[in-house]
Amino acid sequence: MSEQLRVGMVGYAFMGAAHSQAWRTVNHFFDLPLSARMSVVCGRDPSGVAAARDKLGWESSTTDWRSLIERDDIDLIDICTPGDTHAEIALAALAAGKHVLCEKPLANTVAEARQMAAAASAAQAQGVRSMCGFNYRRVPAVELMRRMVAAGRIGQIRHVRAVYLQDWIVDPDFPLVWRLRKEVAGSGALGDIGAHIIDMTQFVTGQSIASVSALTETFVRSRPLPSASSGLSATGDSSDRGEVTVDDAALFLARLSGGAIATYEATRFATGRKNGLRVELNGSLGSLVFDFERMNELSFYDATLPAGEQGFTPILVTEPEHPYMAAWWPTGHPIGYEHTFTHEVRDLIASIGDKTDPAPSFSDALQVQLVLDAVSQSAQSSQWTKVEV
Amino acid sequence: MSEQLRVGMVGYAFMGAAHSQAWRTVNHFFDLPLSARMSVVCGRDPSGVAAARDKLGWESSTTDWRSLIERDDIDLIDICTPGDTHAEIALAALAAGKHVLCEKPLANTVAEARQMAAAASAAQAQGVRSMCGFNYRRVPAVELMRRMVAAGRIGQIRHVRAVYLQDWIVDPDFPLVWRLRKEVAGSGALGDIGAHIIDMTQFVTGQSIASVSALTETFVRSRPLPSASSGLSATGDSSDRGEVTVDDAALFLARLSGGAIATYEATRFATGRKNGLRVELNGSLGSLVFDFERMNELSFYDATLPAGEQGFTPILVTEPEHPYMAAWWPTGHPIGYEHTFTHEVRDLIASIGDKTDPAPSFSDALQVQLVLDAVSQSAQSSQWTKVEV
Amino acid sequence: MSEQLRVGMVGYAFMGAAHSQAWRTVNHFFDLPLSARMSVVCGRDPSGVAAARDKLGWESSTTDWRSLIERDDIDLIDICTPGDTHAEIALAALAAGKHVLCEKPLANTVAEARQMAAAASAAQAQGVRSMCGFNYRRVPAVELMRRMVAAGRIGQIRHVRAVYLQDWIVDPDFPLVWRLRKEVAGSGALGDIGAHIIDMTQFVTGQSIASVSALTETFVRSRPLPSASSGLSATGDSSDRGEVTVDDAALFLARLSGGAIATYEATRFATGRKNGLRVELNGSLGSLVFDFERMNELSFYDATLPAGEQGFTPILVTEPEHPYMAAWWPTGHPIGYEHTFTHEVRDLIASIGDKTDPAPSFSDALQVQLVLDAVSQSAQSSQWTKVEV
Amino acid sequence: MSEQLRVGMVGYAFMGAAHSQAWRTVNHFFDLPLSARMSVVCGRDPSGVAAARDKLGWESSTTDWRSLIERDDIDLIDICTPGDTHAEIALAALAAGKHVLCEKPLANTVAEARQMAAAASAAQAQGVRSMCGFNYRRVPAVELMRRMVAAGRIGQIRHVRAVYLQDWIVDPDFPLVWRLRKEVAGSGALGDIGAHIIDMTQFVTGQSIASVSALTETFVRSRPLPSASSGLSATGDSSDRGEVTVDDAALFLARLSGGAIATYEATRFATGRKNGLRVELNGSLGSLVFDFERMNELSFYDATLPAGEQGFTPILVTEPEHPYMAAWWPTGHPIGYEHTFTHEVRDLIASIGDKTDPAPSFSDALQVQLVLDAVSQSAQSSQWTKVEV
Repeated sequence: MSEQLRVGMVGYAFMGAAHSQAWRTVNHFFDLPLSARMSVVCGRDPSGVAAARDKLGWESSTTDWRSLIERDDIDLIDICTPGDTHAEIALAALAAGKHVLCEKPLANTVAEARQMAAAASAAQAQGVRSMCGFNYRRVPAVELMRRMVAAGRIGQIRHVRAVYLQDWIVDPDFPLVWRLRKEVAGSGALGDIGAHIIDMTQFVTGQSIASVSALTETFVRSRPLPSASSGLSATGDSSDRGEVTVDDAALFLARLSGGAIATYEATRFATGRKNGLRVELNGSLGSLVFDFERMNELSFYDATLPAGEQGFTPILVTEPEHPYMAAWWPTGHPIGYEHTFTHEVRDLIASIGDKTDPAPSFSDALQVQLVLDAVSQSAQSSQWTKVEV
Repeated sequence: MSEQLRVGMVGYAFMGAAHSQAWRTVNHFFDLPLSARMSVVCGRDPSGVAAARDKLGWESSTTDWRSLIERDDIDLIDICTPGDTHAEIALAALAAGKHVLCEKPLANTVAEARQMAAAASAAQAQGVRSMCGFNYRRVPAVELMRRMVAAGRIGQIRHVRAVYLQDWIVDPDFPLVWRLRKEVAGSGALGDIGAHIIDMTQFVTGQSIASVSALTETFVRSRPLPSASSGLSATGDSSDRGEVTVDDAALFLARLSGGAIATYEATRFATGRKNGLRVELNGSLGSLVFDFERMNELSFYDATLPAGEQGFTPILVTEPEHPYMAAWWPTGHPIGYEHTFTHEVRDLIASIGDKTDPAPSFSDALQVQLVLDAVSQSAQSSQWTKVEV
Repeated sequence: MSEQLRVGMVGYAFMGAAHSQAWRTVNHFFDLPLSARMSVVCGRDPSGVAAARDKLGWESSTTDWRSLIERDDIDLIDICTPGDTHAEIALAALAAGKHVLCEKPLANTVAEARQMAAAASAAQAQGVRSMCGFNYRRVPAVELMRRMVAAGRIGQIRHVRAVYLQDWIVDPDFPLVWRLRKEVAGSGALGDIGAHIIDMTQFVTGQSIASVSALTETFVRSRPLPSASSGLSATGDSSDRGEVTVDDAALFLARLSGGAIATYEATRFATGRKNGLRVELNGSLGSLVFDFERMNELSFYDATLPAGEQGFTPILVTEPEHPYMAAWWPTGHPIGYEHTFTHEVRDLIASIGDKTDPAPSFSDALQVQLVLDAVSQSAQSSQWTKVEV
Repeated sequence: MSEQLRVGMVGYAFMGAAHSQAWRTVNHFFDLPLSARMSVVCGRDPSGVAAARDKLGWESSTTDWRSLIERDDIDLIDICTPGDTHAEIALAALAAGKHVLCEKPLANTVAEARQMAAAASAAQAQGVRSMCGFNYRRVPAVELMRRMVAAGRIGQIRHVRAVYLQDWIVDPDFPLVWRLRKEVAGSGALGDIGAHIIDMTQFVTGQSIASVSALTETFVRSRPLPSASSGLSATGDSSDRGEVTVDDAALFLARLSGGAIATYEATRFATGRKNGLRVELNGSLGSLVFDFERMNELSFYDATLPAGEQGFTPILVTEPEHPYMAAWWPTGHPIGYEHTFTHEVRDLIASIGDKTDPAPSFSDALQVQLVLDAVSQSAQSSQWTKVEV
């Protein structure tokens, strides 16, 4: 029997459900040095967290994250709460010597993120591992994209074209959920989904964003207060309204460290686009395109093939040769969204077992935060803004 | 706490792994009257089954399916073995009063299938439930297709066009695995994947296949004996060869009970098609198209829309309004292959809890067997052949 | 100035318009030994043919095809009439020493087609050229498909999957146009559009259809008599109805001379499919797919590429390296339906100039007729039927 | 017989060939009050223009555009030369009372464009018509897009996403053709292809671009001098090199007059994208997407359809109900690139016949020029820049 990795998870909403399924599944498909144990789930609401314990399959539940962190029988704290609480929980967990998996964005401010990155670096010397949960890196097609870029298959990258398009608040009467309130969420589309395309494009290109020119917009400035919400859906009562304090959409141009130029767009007003995370790279020898709505495919244009036989090949990323896929089903059998989290905890457990540092580190996540900050500043000042390094 | 449904699973290869993940997952996403318990896994090879117990997450293992069936602490037998053993195990399990989930094809011969259907009908009177595992019925897009046909959205069906295309044995040196031996598998592409499109098209159209004209072909007639296999992949030693005794491909024309005409094709020689299960229906008011390689989509052509605005709309079947999907992730987040099995056991558990009979029943599966038989006969006789009713 | 090729065209409806645009255009894009001159258009209705002369851009018009054929100042007769008149006109034209371009199907019966092929062979000895107008051979993507098969790029062909799907008579009140009357059209979907996929698949594979098992169906057996028609559209008066004497749909299985097995389907009841001519070939080394609704693309699966980089590449067939395309626009600029006719007359003019025989010859077209005949016989007898050779 | 419109065309390269085919074709498909006559083609090189006369099918040729303009037997001057000569020729033609069709961009500078717009307005009072040739407005799918927006089918537009992607100069040894020299072409990707998406998006949305933040880049700063060129292809000699004085790529963010926000990108370095003109609009009630590489399709997302049946419907824009299409072939038969020019001259001839002013006018084209100018300024200053009105 392999050694256990005893997990305490804080937060049990959308991300908590996704992480639970990952912890439950990972050891049944991947050979790993540690076996995940779903020990404790933690949340503020006593009846809510008890129901989550049963529904999500945890051994026990608690409402006190501080005591959870102090427990000897917990090895890792998995933070699935909104961004405004990440810093406090993560800092305490690292101080207590627990490994930490923290959902993105790492924090709501650069200052917090900087503190967290520093704490993570310090803890690392004690063998404590920390990772930020940019799960889209773990889509097999995305990791394949990174490998193909790294192997030089598309040559020098000239263009990056990245969008993350959703439409869940197009209706002006959709309620004012926490994701639309700056004090909880930090920002709107920018931090929630823009952060993903910032991280992913930097990850696959190996280049970092150096400067940006941005604009943000809030199309619907007041909304009914919510009566209930779950995942991304919610119901509201249109009589009482509150102010939307985050961006509905964020667009920016960027120059990357390796000479590529880029457009980015994150919006919740792209009617019909449900989870349209799309990244295209054009290089001197070829191109690569990924669209999460067809997450099992990666399109590759190989400009070195014979003239007259070139085209954008949608590779069905379900072969045993593809990242993570040998663990799953025979060729041609798609995987889904939740598998990205299973891959995430797979990589984290492997790192803990190997005593290596997992990626993306808190420092990597801080850098994303610095880009988000530059975007916000640029949108406010209407100036090109350098990303702090 | 809900009552338990204690499962004993026989077989632990590809289908065993898929079923295990379904049993493990189902109660964490669906509210059900019974809670699945992964009690015992059973297989012939002692070390193999012990390893499977650990890997797939079962409480215990055994090598004796007969004693498993007799145990009081088992409520349901899940049969994941090759087709030549289905009848014996299922008949014994039903006789012992266990609910039975049996992988498709129900049996290797009509005679066996008939016995099983009779036994299932008899057991049903005692409150014993049985179901055949045609998992593709549980793809949300496929169930949506059925509902739209039933609601009259495409009118009277004129054409059915069904293919199931794979390519895993195109290489003539791919070894002679059990799926290529008639005595174990019953037939080749026909029973393995043709059975799925027979069941699915009858399911979604509500019509049954009345008569067929078929041809079958074995392109590669001898292959190296296998040294090891797993899932659909295998390695072999080319010096020792054996005869392929099943079809590589099966094609047939059909007339359906409701007046539709159809083409069917099942093959393992469609280079580049990995799991290309594709069904198109053309009706008097519209059309529907499904392709498993994009399993989260259903294409709908609505001929009642305004002229000039019609087209094949790829509906992204990830909305809460769609079958099964409210249980999973927010809109736009795809699910994968294994979810079809989770939905299958969800429906089975719901039926057991409700004391209703699940579908497809063993009788439904017998009817598929009769179609397969008519296809085989037609291919041999080169005559149009009626399906026995 | 190049020598002229003086054309007399018989028939001026849909095909006449397409051929006119081809004759008008061809010398402005292709360098050819002869310059086409649109001399005379011929039709039965005096005012109709006069209007067609002006509209389609011919120098003069006549209502007498016999005298047209005798004229010294005409070099080529282009036959665009319905199938029941092809034989008489073509035989007379060949006898008069005129080159002949005859629309498909070559004739309405095998007997006529056989006569025509014999006459064409005899005339050929006198330097008289004849060609049957299977225009889809001249889609650049189709000719590319043929070249790639011939070059061995997909190895030995195992499967052919061909459909030609239209939906223009789904409405049961669409009138009884000439294409639905056996005495004029010969057959229905089978000869009109099935002939195209028979010719095209034999053309691209280099194999001929050896035997077939077919079924045909007429879904709507009586229709209102037409009051006016143009192209494929028409209006009718529902009070007076007549019998539909041709097939609405024809399906068949086939064995090809080179060992491939095939499914074919031609129908006018595939709701939503407008001109869905789709051919897929699966070979031992790769696959090719063409769909006329995206006529500027050819999908190629190359199974010899590195594992993990394979996929169906939609080649945009607009490069100068592609057949016929160097004559047109820069890369990425699509061509349309009428270009297939321009390419057809290009090839014909080149052959006449070179004193070589163009393809498809009347003998090639007779062979298609023999396949159509076998399909009809098989549908009637419900027996596998050999194609006469 | 209808009255003639006698055309004199200046320039006979890529655009000249496209316009010639349009003039030759238009009266054979559209009923128009005037009949186009291809009278004179004009160019600087005597042997070149003589060859063009024969190849493109003009009655005569000349090397002197000034005398052409003075001729009494010419009604319209069609300007197909590079941008640096547009102003001079157009001003002279208008002064001589000729109708003018001028290829885009209208001019190389705002000053010239302003002069031309003023001259056109003045001439208009004399019944002289002028139009700028933004041919992509005449793609049926694009005109359909405009109509659907105007009819309110997608509600209030929130987002515009426009790219024009080509890759013909990715190779650093592709020669320094005139399109890469600022003194002839005015700008690079920006004016050549960026102008098209500026015009098209303003056309379909009915909104104008109000302010921009831009960046431009020249990836390859020196190239071999060309030895020969044709269309967009050329050959060069790598020993002698010259400086590239235009942009290879231009990206900008924009705010539109009606409240929409937008991203624009024009580049010749998008490897694999041949003529990837793609525009997406997201509105409060739906979305529309067009991609020129599939020019016969328009994707429409109708958010007012029943929940669970929505999706991006690729409308095949080949129905008689669609703009311009009733003139062409039956449904399902694609048209090509050159048809956009046929539609352009159709609309121009209709306007001349009706004595109405065609669009886009020179004033419309001036406004595009002002946007291009704002983009250039913004790229240079790194500041948000207002478009002059």
